[in-house]
Amino acid sequence: MNVGFVQQVNQREQAINLADSIRQIGQLANQGAALVVLQELHTSHYFCQTQNSANFKIAEPLVGPTFRALSAAAKQHKLVVVGSIFEQRHAGVYHNTAIVIDSDGSLAGFYRKMHIPDDPGYYEKYYFIPGDTGFKPITTSLGKLGVCICWDQWFPESARLMALAGAELLVFPSAIGWDCNDCDAEKQRQLDAWITIQRSHAIANHLPVIAVNRAGYEADPSGHTAGIDFWGSSFICDAMGTIRVQADSRQASALLTSIDLQATQQQRNTWPFFRDRRIDAYQDLCKRWRDD
Amino acid sequence: MNVGFVQQVNQREQAINLADSIRQIGQLANQGAALVVLQELHTSHYFCQTQNSANFKIAEPLVGPTFRALSAAAKQHKLVVVGSIFEQRHAGVYHNTAIVIDSDGSLAGFYRKMHIPDDPGYYEKYYFIPGDTGFKPITTSLGKLGVCICWDQWFPESARLMALAGAELLVFPSAIGWDCNDCDAEKQRQLDAWITIQRSHAIANHLPVIAVNRAGYEADPSGHTAGIDFWGSSFICDAMGTIRVQADSRQASALLTSIDLQATQQQRNTWPFFRDRRIDAYQDLCKRWRDD
Repeated sequence: MNVGFVQQVNQREQAINLADSIRQIGQLANQGAALVVLQELHTSHYFCQTQNSANFKIAEPLVGPTFRALSAAAKQHKLVVVGSIFEQRHAGVYHNTAIVIDSDGSLAGFYRKMHIPDDPGYYEKYYFIPGDTGFKPITTSLGKLGVCICWDQWFPESARLMALAGAELLVFPSAIGWDCNDCDAEKQRQLDAWITIQRSHAIANHLPVIAVNRAGYEADPSGHTAGIDFWGSSFICDAMGTIRVQADSRQASALLTSIDLQATQQQRNTWPFFRDRRIDAYQDLCKRWRDD
Repeated sequence: MNVGFVQQVNQREQAINLADSIRQIGQLANQGAALVVLQELHTSHYFCQTQNSANFKIAEPLVGPTFRALSAAAKQHKLVVVGSIFEQRHAGVYHNTAIVIDSDGSLAGFYRKMHIPDDPGYYEKYYFIPGDTGFKPITTSLGKLGVCICWDQWFPESARLMALAGAELLVFPSAIGWDCNDCDAEKQRQLDAWITIQRSHAIANHLPVIAVNRAGYEADPSGHTAGIDFWGSSFICDAMGTIRVQADSRQASALLTSIDLQATQQQRNTWPFFRDRRIDAYQDLCKRWRDD
């Protein structure tokens, strides 16, 4: 099965970004892609750099303009697309939501980002209510996709819960980058940690991982910070965590590779982690902290 | 704080192995080590390659000959030692147990391996009852050590539970190696997965990790397999998962590096994962599988 991703350098104009996504989906389709994953909030700049109520106007319903555009592309090219929207669920109820569109153009399902970050330059708790979908894979004609979003990637719980619910492939659309004031060594450590933690989800669960991040510099509209230099480096690794294809940290790029969903069963038979989980001793994972 | 490990190539004679451990502890002490971690089952060959009831005679009580030898070394050099024994808790009740000895020679605590593997060449379920200590860090004069053992390293749950219970440092004594019949590419993938998963525990929890494995070839006494080529590669990484020191895959070696336990708080303030854990949505981590 050929799977691909689109790593974009976004423009200010939403229509340009969406048209670019559609064009890249078409190109990956021509190369044989059966699944294409887009980056987090691919239609816009990463607006969470500031808290600005004017940004709520970017929000759209689950079945809105982004869905319709991606649905048409999915149907035309007969492939599955994972897109990302700033979802307005109801007046004052907003989420950071992934939409999964099956190869017939239908909405296969959606996932609302469960872990919401909030730190300087990433003011997501202002915009997004933490998701209430839980960690439930989305069934498509290609299999069950364990779609998480960005900050979820740092939590081994996200990947494990998706695996336990039958995910066959893990997907992480992201928007993460460097603080321009950090030194090169710190930048490298952060990027390396980002790659390593996502590869570890592949290893711990014996599932392929598609991690898609944006690239390019986006200024802080408020002028308070030096902006974010999104580090790209989108990659696809197999069920042993081996990277099969990776984009660079600067350029827009659309890449694909073949992955073998059958490898999961073979790996799980070789190293049978799921047999040996100590579910009798995991209760404290549901605690905030153990103070005893 | 200087922390070190002893990666050994074990001999058949237990007294030789233990004397070698003691000698290496002394050398690391001379270099300023405050903590030394030994590999899993460091007094013997990895006897779990076969199921042989004669091996039960190797077992010893918690406070037995290995404890006494390590206790004397810890007291003499005023450092903390993490050792590993085949524990006989009672007649017919055996565990794979880590013992932590404080710098005054006292038993600070112990941990009984919770996740027990069992696959060709690693017949541990025959020898060891799964631990009942839970994932509880051991308090020492240096801080709280989250000691896990080998197979535990593949389960993100182990590291997370230790972190939630206040561990300041994660420790993984191991005995893992290559099947001599595997190709070089597969060997490299397995070693890389082993390093990556343990680095990921550092990243997910912002804790330094000390991973200590044996090196050297040990034949299968039964002659049924080609034996195990233990891959060494012991390493210490910091709270961002950056490897600070690493042994090679073939040689015995005793190495140390300095680590900064204060870095944990700084990292957790930069990337506040513990703030955002969705403990309201993690209940299924205590299930074997989600069949719905």
